[in-house]
Amino acid sequence: MWPDQRLLSLIGIELPIIQAPMAGASGSAMAAAVSEAGGLGSLPCAMLDPAQVRVEVAAIRQRSAKPLNLNFFCHDTPMPQPERDSAWRQRLAEYYKEYGLEASAAAPAVNRTPFDAAMCELVEEHKPEAVSFHFGLPETGLLRRVQASGSVVLSSATTVEEARWLEDHGCDAIIAQGYEAGAHRGMFLTDDIATQPGTLALVPQVVDAVSVPVVAAGGIADGRGVAAAFALGAAGALIGTAYLLTHESLISDLWRAALRTARDDRTALTNVFSGRPARGIVNRVMRELGPMSELAPAFPKAGGALAPLKAKAEAQGSSDFSLLWAGQAAALARETGAGDLTRELAVDAKRRLGQLGPAE
Amino acid sequence: MWPDQRLLSLIGIELPIIQAPMAGASGSAMAAAVSEAGGLGSLPCAMLDPAQVRVEVAAIRQRSAKPLNLNFFCHDTPMPQPERDSAWRQRLAEYYKEYGLEASAAAPAVNRTPFDAAMCELVEEHKPEAVSFHFGLPETGLLRRVQASGSVVLSSATTVEEARWLEDHGCDAIIAQGYEAGAHRGMFLTDDIATQPGTLALVPQVVDAVSVPVVAAGGIADGRGVAAAFALGAAGALIGTAYLLTHESLISDLWRAALRTARDDRTALTNVFSGRPARGIVNRVMRELGPMSELAPAFPKAGGALAPLKAKAEAQGSSDFSLLWAGQAAALARETGAGDLTRELAVDAKRRLGQLGPAE
Repeated sequence: MWPDQRLLSLIGIELPIIQAPMAGASGSAMAAAVSEAGGLGSLPCAMLDPAQVRVEVAAIRQRSAKPLNLNFFCHDTPMPQPERDSAWRQRLAEYYKEYGLEASAAAPAVNRTPFDAAMCELVEEHKPEAVSFHFGLPETGLLRRVQASGSVVLSSATTVEEARWLEDHGCDAIIAQGYEAGAHRGMFLTDDIATQPGTLALVPQVVDAVSVPVVAAGGIADGRGVAAAFALGAAGALIGTAYLLTHESLISDLWRAALRTARDDRTALTNVFSGRPARGIVNRVMRELGPMSELAPAFPKAGGALAPLKAKAEAQGSSDFSLLWAGQAAALARETGAGDLTRELAVDAKRRLGQLGPAE
Repeated sequence: MWPDQRLLSLIGIELPIIQAPMAGASGSAMAAAVSEAGGLGSLPCAMLDPAQVRVEVAAIRQRSAKPLNLNFFCHDTPMPQPERDSAWRQRLAEYYKEYGLEASAAAPAVNRTPFDAAMCELVEEHKPEAVSFHFGLPETGLLRRVQASGSVVLSSATTVEEARWLEDHGCDAIIAQGYEAGAHRGMFLTDDIATQPGTLALVPQVVDAVSVPVVAAGGIADGRGVAAAFALGAAGALIGTAYLLTHESLISDLWRAALRTARDDRTALTNVFSGRPARGIVNRVMRELGPMSELAPAFPKAGGALAPLKAKAEAQGSSDFSLLWAGQAAALARETGAGDLTRELAVDAKRRLGQLGPAE
């Protein structure tokens, strides 16, 4: 028995472990492995088009009939900002020169698309057991359709205020995303990273503020972290970085190498790769341009102009211009299968919980 | 029985709760109350002279014969930086004008003094059961004398690297101070706040890196946080902000009022009050000058030039220029006695640990 069963009952899963959807880093193989192991596998859809989502969901359903989460971004698409784009490219000019790139080198549009009617139809068609959002929630009409299709709705809160807002707007469970978390912060009512709370402080305050189950996220990478999440009042844990080293991970060899030597004190929040704050392993471009830059174009466009540099550098075996998302507990990650990791996280957490009590 | 008894045996305390020493905010009354309740009371000595320490220790020993911790800073005294001081005063000129202060208004020297031979003699004389340091450790000669006098030595680590360094240099226990913590960060091998890990990520990595007992600090303000500390592998918890609202706290009414309305997302790290990064409730001076300012003179001098502004503003009932140290879990603090708080933290943590296990 887990100390809190609410998340398990709500979604119909066996283990209180949610695999974080990691756009560009995880796909159907990881989601299927986690779901089949008893956790909640997540398919990140933000960088896929509807046809790709359809293919991926089919691949998952073929491998597992257990609950699945589809994840979407719901950011506002930014207005064109030609001046800012141009200032950004100017800031990057020295790097273009260093790598022998034309200033006009193609800057591919970064295809992170917000949840829309086409994706909503997919949800209605596939009826995933859970749908999770990042950066708030979609407009009410779309949200109602997701709810009507029977999916449990989750979203991320980085503050108590965001958690209350999500509950008021109909979320069935709230992911309390602490400062330690890798990749994009889900923040949507604030853009001030200086005041973002750490997981240990955030989770109990969110638990006190809302009545729906809370899932702890950020800095959790082994059974100790999962046990701590329950101690703080969470009903489950969402884990990302630990899955980046699994066999099912889609990350590059360079990213994988960076994770293998990760340290507790070598990640930072940066906006240079996308325009929004996200945590990654500090590398040259983060050090020299930020890690936070006032010049970076609004999400999701900042990364476009970096793409040619990334391609050139990676071809030379360098991750100087690559995004290397990782949370602060990356050093605890091990190389294994995603299904095995899910089971081991649960076994370790249960063992840990067993060692902790009864206290007398 | 607590899940880990090492800290209790090491120091000879009954409860694995260390009251954080809070220079300027806590004194003998709080330390005595916590020690007598079975935790480890701490007397902050950084802003006291030897005569004052003697009086305070006598007051504590009169009220409790149980273990006591004396805390010292061990920063380097900065070289004079007249240009930086002048740039800082220039930056503050508009505020001086606003408050009708002469630009030459007295800027009292901030008397935070590092641990020295005189303080070491006090330690040898009083033989506190524990001595804790912040900002590293004192020079070897002094450290050896503290050890020889029989005191258990503790210091704060904000990264795994700092924890290893402290163990290598003879610390008997290590306080893993996460990003959430209020007041000064103990960082001494780095000055980069962007890469400081949160408590939930830091504690297990420190536990894996050292063999001495680890005390979790930062964002812990109730029994859930203490239970989480044990889940992460800590042998105890150090708690500061929760004690700021106790009857024994020495803080001003304005600070107390700010704490009563504290939120999870309204603190930040700032150097404007002292020159070193410390977490406080965001107020006008933090917002307008920082929260981190490149102009702030080196620790401990930055606050001197703010003192006349603080005095004027406070006289008008405003905390716009006051340091309001607080951690990210300040909203969980309650108004009670320091002894009662210590006992309640332990009772709540034990109840919580009992609810968590056995897991099956």
